[in-house]
Amino acid sequence: MAEQRVPTTRDEYRVFRTLTTRWLDNDIYGHMNNVVHYSLFDTAVNGWLIEHRLLDIRTSSEIGLVVETGCRYYSELAFPDVVTAGIRVAHIGNSSVRYEVGLFRNDEVRAAADGFFVHVYVDRETRKPVPLAPAFRAALDTLQQ
Amino acid sequence: MAEQRVPTTRDEYRVFRTLTTRWLDNDIYGHMNNVVHYSLFDTAVNGWLIEHRLLDIRTSSEIGLVVETGCRYYSELAFPDVVTAGIRVAHIGNSSVRYEVGLFRNDEVRAAADGFFVHVYVDRETRKPVPLAPAFRAALDTLQQ
Amino acid sequence: MAEQRVPTTRDEYRVFRTLTTRWLDNDIYGHMNNVVHYSLFDTAVNGWLIEHRLLDIRTSSEIGLVVETGCRYYSELAFPDVVTAGIRVAHIGNSSVRYEVGLFRNDEVRAAADGFFVHVYVDRETRKPVPLAPAFRAALDTLQQ
Amino acid sequence: MAEQRVPTTRDEYRVFRTLTTRWLDNDIYGHMNNVVHYSLFDTAVNGWLIEHRLLDIRTSSEIGLVVETGCRYYSELAFPDVVTAGIRVAHIGNSSVRYEVGLFRNDEVRAAADGFFVHVYVDRETRKPVPLAPAFRAALDTLQQ
Repeated sequence: MAEQRVPTTRDEYRVFRTLTTRWLDNDIYGHMNNVVHYSLFDTAVNGWLIEHRLLDIRTSSEIGLVVETGCRYYSELAFPDVVTAGIRVAHIGNSSVRYEVGLFRNDEVRAAADGFFVHVYVDRETRKPVPLAPAFRAALDTLQQ
Repeated sequence: MAEQRVPTTRDEYRVFRTLTTRWLDNDIYGHMNNVVHYSLFDTAVNGWLIEHRLLDIRTSSEIGLVVETGCRYYSELAFPDVVTAGIRVAHIGNSSVRYEVGLFRNDEVRAAADGFFVHVYVDRETRKPVPLAPAFRAALDTLQQ
Repeated sequence: MAEQRVPTTRDEYRVFRTLTTRWLDNDIYGHMNNVVHYSLFDTAVNGWLIEHRLLDIRTSSEIGLVVETGCRYYSELAFPDVVTAGIRVAHIGNSSVRYEVGLFRNDEVRAAADGFFVHVYVDRETRKPVPLAPAFRAALDTLQQ
Repeated sequence: MAEQRVPTTRDEYRVFRTLTTRWLDNDIYGHMNNVVHYSLFDTAVNGWLIEHRLLDIRTSSEIGLVVETGCRYYSELAFPDVVTAGIRVAHIGNSSVRYEVGLFRNDEVRAAADGFFVHVYVDRETRKPVPLAPAFRAALDTLQQ
């Protein structure tokens, strides 16, 4: 808690997705529960992958397993806010990718929260890691800062 | 099951809200789980009420308690579909309202699912029913078919 | 709303499942949001089916698609309540089943809410209805009142 | 990813809560979605606080705002698993607490996932940080390793 906590800003992300909030996102304290942010991370990144034909939920032979996630919360989001999710790729390994996502409230420039998740790509059946395909890696390169 | 099951169409609703789907809306069968539809009902109607200053989540002295809900499912919705929710009011009682909502997949004209919920308006503290305020009733009238 | 609203009681159900509530079940009004009840319905019935080896989530060639659901809410549930779900089967058709579920708060005898869902069993790939297998039908018979 | 990833074990936690999983916890990949783990963290810790009368959801004048969360995933959880959540307190500051939680699948001794969240305690109305009350601090001390 002593360390610096500086929200990321929109210019630090490469692509953006607009996401609507839901009534049940608000918990008893009247703001978006900390759990929901992770649902928005998943939705933003996988939405981008699907739109760019890099993931087919039902048929892809490789799937991304989440091995680590984290989030910092700077200010409150709440239904009925509209959230813009900014996406960037921070690291591309042999079979893993670290995605970073910032969540921006309505027109705000500083993130209300930002976080990451690490995907390890595995064979859907054997769940063993597989190297990232060259086309997939090339697409992810465009999301690097 | 023997009765007719005819999806409602867009022209049967009065106002519309655009809602984004989420990765976790899909269950293991690869489609939106039947539970999520109700979350979209709540979101659509309360979003409209808030936008029209008929509900302030944190301060309204009256709140709507849900006493009955129902939904019929005609065809699958799935992330990353965009859903348009059509809203209408089917009945306005002394202290209750029956909202009906149709969920439309992307550009489709026939509902993928349609359903309802009945709100009884109560005092936030005592949870006793209260008569609908005239201004609230007038606003709901505009949603009647 | 004019009709009778009488909660079901524990003796009207055949089998029971104990379910824990979660922090996020409570919405801003401090009680379990109406959506969550349906998640408990799914969980109770599918949990029973899996335990009795009538459903294997990953491998069953037939899956139950939900075509209709409904719920009546009589009194509030809230985290950290423990919920007991009572299950019964109200109708067994050629390829469909109507499950009815009552949700009981802690030690209460009258349901806080009760509802139903109708499953149509379909082939996982073609999504065409299939007749219920005799062993499955026999197991469901034990849940009839 | 190069660093060591060693799951925590049951003996590293001080108190335990039993939590049931739900149908919708499983995403399309047939395992508990990474988001759900955080819902279990919230549920375990707040459940313990409520049971020990350290938190009253509706009336406490101080509430815990989450400022940071994180989780590591070692192996899959899935409905209908029963999850045991182990809880410990890793740090107690002036107005903040770092809770750590391990999620154990059925009877397993090594965590399927472990993570943390940091609560800053604030006044419910002003949302300004407040020092931890001595009785609260004393209770949290019992959760330290």
